[in-house]
Amino acid sequence: MEEVKLHGMWASPFTYRVKWGLELKGIPYQYVEEDITNKSPLLLHYNPLHKKVPVLVHGGKPVCESIVILEYMDEIWPQYPLFPINPFDRAMARFWIKYTDNKLFGNRLLFGSGSGEEAEKARAEGIEFLRTIEEQCLGDKKFFAGEAIGALDLAFGGIAQWLPVLEEVSGWKLLNADEFPRLYAWTKNFKEAAVIRDNLPGADKLAGLYNRLRHQRLRSAAE
Amino acid sequence: MEEVKLHGMWASPFTYRVKWGLELKGIPYQYVEEDITNKSPLLLHYNPLHKKVPVLVHGGKPVCESIVILEYMDEIWPQYPLFPINPFDRAMARFWIKYTDNKLFGNRLLFGSGSGEEAEKARAEGIEFLRTIEEQCLGDKKFFAGEAIGALDLAFGGIAQWLPVLEEVSGWKLLNADEFPRLYAWTKNFKEAAVIRDNLPGADKLAGLYNRLRHQRLRSAAE
Repeated sequence: MEEVKLHGMWASPFTYRVKWGLELKGIPYQYVEEDITNKSPLLLHYNPLHKKVPVLVHGGKPVCESIVILEYMDEIWPQYPLFPINPFDRAMARFWIKYTDNKLFGNRLLFGSGSGEEAEKARAEGIEFLRTIEEQCLGDKKFFAGEAIGALDLAFGGIAQWLPVLEEVSGWKLLNADEFPRLYAWTKNFKEAAVIRDNLPGADKLAGLYNRLRHQRLRSAAE
Repeated sequence: MEEVKLHGMWASPFTYRVKWGLELKGIPYQYVEEDITNKSPLLLHYNPLHKKVPVLVHGGKPVCESIVILEYMDEIWPQYPLFPINPFDRAMARFWIKYTDNKLFGNRLLFGSGSGEEAEKARAEGIEFLRTIEEQCLGDKKFFAGEAIGALDLAFGGIAQWLPVLEEVSGWKLLNADEFPRLYAWTKNFKEAAVIRDNLPGADKLAGLYNRLRHQRLRSAAE
């Protein structure tokens, strides 16, 4: 079997999408941690356009963008399919993945200026996003894909582990159990699944990073 | 065979991606023109989240988002594959499609305010986009996919027919033949291919629409 390497960063939910996919499929791989403040020449070589993690290097060839990598993995390693087999269901999964990838309100919530207007707007967008997922996408299933975790669950992984930390650091509460009971239950189900539970960044470590980034940003905005 | 309908809008390059795909695969379909200033109840029913064209309705089931539709079409109707067969090449096509779908500088170019600062910024972004495509993506091939038109060519269709009209209306010239010889040659090859040539909105009609929209926007910005 050809060598598999994953270039990632410990706090990136996009990196974890790929890591979880590899674990679910049982693919042996070498993980390469990247310092995103000092990117390695190899990362710049593999992803010259975006210079971002994750990059999956398979037999020396790089594949970039987390969702593109998940699709690639399903084609190369068919065990434990991440995307639904039925073409219509696959299209639905891709539709929702595209929707979530355009809704990155997290950074604006975290870095919203002191006045809070930008953060307030990001919060409203975040609530609308969660409501759409709760009402139109999740349904009464245990996971987005049904009884087992699939690509859409991996894509929404950020809601399960990163959002609660973001809420704590920013002081905004978005995902209330009362308001979003199904989505809240999903976060529990997701984080309790063995492969996910064993591959999550620590909440304290994540909070430490977000606090540092937030204070840096607010300080530089105030200067 | 189950009924196939395409809900689209005559000036939308996203609609044409799907239309071209259907024509290339030789799938009989009914085209339903949508008035985007007065959307039909059926469109709102089929795409309640985005309320946008194109929507492909296959056997009564709607698929939304132009690229999601092209992927679906390749799975349902394997004749004339739009995406490359090789998994690594497929990943590359998906990577570049994702890149182009995040670079919608056209609207800002068209609607840039009188002072021109916004339009100037959109123009610089557009040039950078074209340079990236010219140097990193197209190579010396006739089409992005090689000798025959594929999904990436359909995704870039806007460059071939819509961009020249946008340039004319906005007064900004982006795609110079001297500066981007390969991409310029591609626009010629693409528009000369039979299925594309026979399915393009007229440049004059498009210019009329863009001029009206631009004047409306500039007038309302000045009020």
